[in-house]
Amino acid sequence: MKKHNFSAGPCILPQSVMQQAAEAVVELDNSGLSLIEISHRSPAFVSIMDKATSLALELLGLEGKGYQALFLQGGASQQFLNVAYNLLENKAGYANTGTWSTKAMKEAKLLGEVVELSSSKDANFNYIPKGFDIPSDLDYLHITTNNTIFGTQYKALPETSVPLVSDSSSDIFSRSLDFSKFAILYAGAQKNMGPAGATLVIVKDEVLGKVSRQIPSMLDYKIHADKESMFNTPPVFAVYTSMLNLEWLKNKGGIAVIEKENDAKAALMYGEIDRNPLFNGFAATEDRSNMNATFTLADEVHKERFEAMAKEAGLNGINGHRSVGGYRASMYNALPIESVQVLVDVMKTLEQNA
Amino acid sequence: MKKHNFSAGPCILPQSVMQQAAEAVVELDNSGLSLIEISHRSPAFVSIMDKATSLALELLGLEGKGYQALFLQGGASQQFLNVAYNLLENKAGYANTGTWSTKAMKEAKLLGEVVELSSSKDANFNYIPKGFDIPSDLDYLHITTNNTIFGTQYKALPETSVPLVSDSSSDIFSRSLDFSKFAILYAGAQKNMGPAGATLVIVKDEVLGKVSRQIPSMLDYKIHADKESMFNTPPVFAVYTSMLNLEWLKNKGGIAVIEKENDAKAALMYGEIDRNPLFNGFAATEDRSNMNATFTLADEVHKERFEAMAKEAGLNGINGHRSVGGYRASMYNALPIESVQVLVDVMKTLEQNA
Repeated sequence: MKKHNFSAGPCILPQSVMQQAAEAVVELDNSGLSLIEISHRSPAFVSIMDKATSLALELLGLEGKGYQALFLQGGASQQFLNVAYNLLENKAGYANTGTWSTKAMKEAKLLGEVVELSSSKDANFNYIPKGFDIPSDLDYLHITTNNTIFGTQYKALPETSVPLVSDSSSDIFSRSLDFSKFAILYAGAQKNMGPAGATLVIVKDEVLGKVSRQIPSMLDYKIHADKESMFNTPPVFAVYTSMLNLEWLKNKGGIAVIEKENDAKAALMYGEIDRNPLFNGFAATEDRSNMNATFTLADEVHKERFEAMAKEAGLNGINGHRSVGGYRASMYNALPIESVQVLVDVMKTLEQNA
Repeated sequence: MKKHNFSAGPCILPQSVMQQAAEAVVELDNSGLSLIEISHRSPAFVSIMDKATSLALELLGLEGKGYQALFLQGGASQQFLNVAYNLLENKAGYANTGTWSTKAMKEAKLLGEVVELSSSKDANFNYIPKGFDIPSDLDYLHITTNNTIFGTQYKALPETSVPLVSDSSSDIFSRSLDFSKFAILYAGAQKNMGPAGATLVIVKDEVLGKVSRQIPSMLDYKIHADKESMFNTPPVFAVYTSMLNLEWLKNKGGIAVIEKENDAKAALMYGEIDRNPLFNGFAATEDRSNMNATFTLADEVHKERFEAMAKEAGLNGINGHRSVGGYRASMYNALPIESVQVLVDVMKTLEQNA
C-alpha cells in the first residue's frame, strides 16, 4: 500500500533521491566501488562534498557573499554548543519558542551569560513572541525559525544589529528569506535536506575568530571551514544524499518554486483544520508553520476511529509530540500535495460519519 | 572490472551488507517506507538500534559485564574531546604512537594535565613503545590499539591499574582481546564496523560520573547511555549498516573466526614484503599491524611501473599516507584473501620483470 509519510523527521525525501542513493550504495558512478567504501579523500568524494556545499550556498543566494557552508555531524543538538563556543564571549540573547530553543540556551549557559529575551512558554509555545527588546551589546541573537514540535514559524525575522543565529533544522530550503541577514544558520539534515547524520552550518566568515577562548578542534567552525568540511571523516552517505536532494531542489527551480508548493499544501491543510468542527488548530493563526501543522480533536471520542481511518488510508507519522498531544502533519518539501489531500479527505469523512 | 579495495577508510564492507543496505534505502522490510524516511522513534528503528548495541557488546564478550555500547557521531576526532570531558579530572597519561594519539592529546590538554608517557616519534612512529612507566594516580591511560597511518598495532595491552581508554577505530572487531580490560573503547565506524557517520563508544558504567565539571549534553556519555543513544537523532543509515555488518560477523562465527582470516591475509602480505627484494616493510616486525601493512619500494625507479600494474589489476587505495610515503595495504575484515593474493602477484611480477 502506498504510504503518505508525514513523519516529523527523519522524513520523506524525493523518491528519485532515495533511488539514486540506493544505487550509489551498490556502485557509485560505474566506479566498481560502493559510495560507502571509497576514501573521503578520493577525487570522487571531494567533488561530491564540493557540489553539496556549493549547492547549499547557491540555493540560499549566498554565493560570493562571504559565507561558508559546512557539513558537520551531531545535528542541531551539537550546534547548540558549537554556536556558543564560537561566538559567545560575554552575553547572548535567545528567543525561547519551545523545546529546542530551551535546549540551545541550556548548552550556551555553560560558556557565558544567556539572556532569555522572550518566551511563549506561558501558552505552551503556541505562538512566536514579537517586538521584544534586543540589547545592542549581545554577541548574538539566537532564534529557531521553525518549531517542529509546536508548529510555529517566524514569518518575519527580528530586526537587529547584532549577529543573528538560527536553528533552521525544520524549515531550511523551504521558503525564501533574505538569508544574508544571518550570521549563522544551522540545520540537521533530516527534514528538508537529506538523511539523518549530516548537519549543515552556514557561517559568515566575519563572525568567526572573535572569542578569546581556545575552541576544541571538532567544535571550531574555522577549522572545519579551512579544511572544507574534511577535518575529520565526513558522514559520506548523508552528505551524498543531501547533495542529491539539493540538486533535485535546484532542478525543480529552487526555493521560490518549492515555497509555492509548500504554501499550497499548508493552505489545504489549515483550511480543513479551520473548516472542520471536529478539529482545532494548536498554533496561533498568524504564526502557523508551513512545515508542521499541529492540531487536536475537539472531542477525544473520535480518536480511535480517526486513527484507524488514518492507518487504513496509509497515513504515517501523524501523531503529535507528547508536549502538544493530538496530531501533527509534517509537510516537508518532498511531501506531495496528494498526500495532504488524503489526510484532508480522512478528516472530512470522519466529520461526515460523526 | 573487479576492484580490490585496500582503502584505509572508509573501506570495503561485505558485498551482502552493501546490498542489504541499498535495499533498505529503497524500502525497509516491506514497510512501504525507506530506511531513511522513518522516524528514529519508530519501533522499527528502535529495534535496529537495540540490535546494533547488543551485537557490539556480544561480539566483544561484554554482555552483562557493566558496559554500555553507544552509537554517537563525530568519529574518533570527537571522542578525543569527549573522553577528556568525561574522565579527566586532574591528570591523564597518553601513549603517543602517531598522528591520532597526538591529536587526542591536543584536545585533552584543554581540560587537564596530559602526560606523554611514551612516544615513538623518534622513529616516525614505526614501532609501539613498551614497558613505559604508568603512574598510578592517572585518571586514565589512553592508547591507540592500531595506528592506521604507520601500520603498527599493540600485540599486548599495557598492564595497568588505571582505567584503560583506547581509540580502536581501525582494529575493533578484528581480533580477540580481553575487552573487559578497557574502561572506554571507541571507534569510528568506517573501518571494520560500517560506513562513515557513526561512532561506537563502549563505556564501563563505573568510570562515569566522577568528574566535577559540568559536561555539555552532547559530550556526556551518561546522557547518551541513559537515552540509549537516542538523546538526539542518530545517524540512521550508518547505524543500520553497522548493525548489518555486526550481524554478518556474528553469522561468520564472530571475532575468533575473522581473526584467523585476518592472520592469514597478514601472513601472505608480510611474507611477500619480506621476501621481495624490491620492497621494504615500514613498521617494526614485532609491531606490524594486521590491518594496515605499510611498505615502500627499495628503489623509486620501479614506482611508475608498479603503480600502473596495480591499477591494471584493479587495486584500489594502496597509496601510503603522506606521513610515511610508499604504500599501504589495508586488509580489513571484509577484504577477501584473494585481493591480497592479487596484490602479492603484482609485486612478484614486478620483481620478475625488474
